[in-house]
Amino acid sequence: MPLDKPGLRVGVVGATGMVGRELLHVLDKTRLPIRELRPYSSGKTGKTVRFRGKTLAAPSLELEGLRSCDLVFFVSSDEVSKEHAPDLARRGVWVIDDSSAFRLDPKVPLVIPEVNAHALSKDRRLIAGPNCTMTPLAVAGNALHRSACVTEVRLATYQAVSGAGRAALEEFFRQTAGLGRLSAADRAPVLPKLAHSALPRPIACNVIPQVGSFDAAGASGEERKVAAELRKVWDAPRLKVSVTAVRVPVVRGHSMSAWLTFKTPLSPGRARKLLARSPGLVLHAEGDYPTPALVGGKAPVHAGRVRRGATDRELCLWLSFDNLLKGAALNSVQIAEELFRRGWL
Amino acid sequence: MPLDKPGLRVGVVGATGMVGRELLHVLDKTRLPIRELRPYSSGKTGKTVRFRGKTLAAPSLELEGLRSCDLVFFVSSDEVSKEHAPDLARRGVWVIDDSSAFRLDPKVPLVIPEVNAHALSKDRRLIAGPNCTMTPLAVAGNALHRSACVTEVRLATYQAVSGAGRAALEEFFRQTAGLGRLSAADRAPVLPKLAHSALPRPIACNVIPQVGSFDAAGASGEERKVAAELRKVWDAPRLKVSVTAVRVPVVRGHSMSAWLTFKTPLSPGRARKLLARSPGLVLHAEGDYPTPALVGGKAPVHAGRVRRGATDRELCLWLSFDNLLKGAALNSVQIAEELFRRGWL
Repeated sequence: MPLDKPGLRVGVVGATGMVGRELLHVLDKTRLPIRELRPYSSGKTGKTVRFRGKTLAAPSLELEGLRSCDLVFFVSSDEVSKEHAPDLARRGVWVIDDSSAFRLDPKVPLVIPEVNAHALSKDRRLIAGPNCTMTPLAVAGNALHRSACVTEVRLATYQAVSGAGRAALEEFFRQTAGLGRLSAADRAPVLPKLAHSALPRPIACNVIPQVGSFDAAGASGEERKVAAELRKVWDAPRLKVSVTAVRVPVVRGHSMSAWLTFKTPLSPGRARKLLARSPGLVLHAEGDYPTPALVGGKAPVHAGRVRRGATDRELCLWLSFDNLLKGAALNSVQIAEELFRRGWL
Repeated sequence: MPLDKPGLRVGVVGATGMVGRELLHVLDKTRLPIRELRPYSSGKTGKTVRFRGKTLAAPSLELEGLRSCDLVFFVSSDEVSKEHAPDLARRGVWVIDDSSAFRLDPKVPLVIPEVNAHALSKDRRLIAGPNCTMTPLAVAGNALHRSACVTEVRLATYQAVSGAGRAALEEFFRQTAGLGRLSAADRAPVLPKLAHSALPRPIACNVIPQVGSFDAAGASGEERKVAAELRKVWDAPRLKVSVTAVRVPVVRGHSMSAWLTFKTPLSPGRARKLLARSPGLVLHAEGDYPTPALVGGKAPVHAGRVRRGATDRELCLWLSFDNLLKGAALNSVQIAEELFRRGWL
């Protein structure tokens, strides 16, 4: 931090995107001393953003501007991060990257502050934030894993359309409007085919078990990310993970049904006690549960329906959380706050 | 069947309900020789139904009319089935009951014709059809179970609103209309709270991990049904089953992600071969998959995404199917067709 004037110069690459707008919203309320905010658009130029009551232009990214920042958030594509993030970090700028470009790089810490802040290091200035589906699972399961050692994870997700970006969300809204005035009439209607391009199938009144592209083993990109990143964040290289990632017609808020198998048996009652004191987590009362409509715009991960799974070494639980916040923008800002707390920033 | 005039007298109790209308639609096309159809409403009177081009009145149920039927379908509540179905069966009428009243009664066959037609018996005239979520799973998993013995099942469901009846569907449509003209605007919108009464939470732009009421162990009614009925239909009393049943904003078509653990390892390739020749099942090509929007109004269960699960004794697959057809009305008619084929009807 320069000594002449206190406060941070903070760059945001991808400021006009869906996560970028959320990031600015979270930064609006952060305790980080931001002297200057420099928003950059990685797509169309001419856009503006709002920050602390002011309208700021978001030009194309500009190297000199970025290099004189103390901290730069990347909330754009893997390609943009790959091109610029390592160079900035080498020059001493702290870089918090929300793309998946460096998450599995062994030299890059992949950090969820509540889970593995210990992975941060003063000389590793490029830091990755994990996948938006994996982050809340890692938060919720962390205390259980530390207590009883998770050996297997099975996960079925219910992922909001906003996680696929603005074009997908606009497509969902167009499709919903196109359904017209729905009616049950005499028989439940079989709905018409709807046009789609941003998502691999129509999403209005539908669910799509494909998030990303499939590999030879039949796993989608999202499913691979969740498995690999969870192993890294929990430092559990032999963890067995099977995921079915599914897009659902929800605007905001991912949910999931998670089955966790433990080395040591763990009762639902004991698990509830551990969850109740987990940071960043709200545990719902028995018989209650969160839904995406409840968690939109809220910071914590919400958990409920903690119960025995298929075997006595297994628990099942339900999570809902704002995919744009703890899943992305909020986690990035929390990493920055941790760096600041340590006096590294 | 009376000798004076060929053909069956068929009663339908609950003919004006959501499944009832589908049942009449399926009966319209059946090869069963229906001489007379007698539709009864178990709710409001004064309603009519359409059958083979004619409009028929659906009066309150009337004992003399039912007792002189050869076959009666019950597609109404558990209470209505409990009151009338056993008495009719005792009097020699074939009764096919789609309610959950008798499914777990050891004296009542619980039948999916593709899976356990052998459970039918000439002297057991009260026959139950299983839960709409379990039926397609039992169909899809049957060949795999016979080949490699399923020991554990984990299931996350994506269930359509029509499965909760017409009031829930009308509520979904009202909520969808109430969302107005959605727009992504600058940030993904956090949606307003929506009024609800038929379902335990708003369902438009939301998912609800509750289908039925919770027991002391935290399982919902739907989750208990799936587990208990699958054990009965597969004749696998020690099968371990864990289900998370979730309602999603879909009109028609349930889906599920299923994890099956086998006693004998079973490769995805071998499983695909077994599924490809399973009756009542459409297997999608690798890389393809069914969605609810595709299966609405179609008879077979659709399967895809057959892949290795968390362990080498486990497979994961994705199913979509019309919950009102194979899940309910169609299965009931298929039972009747099997009785007719055997000459018992």
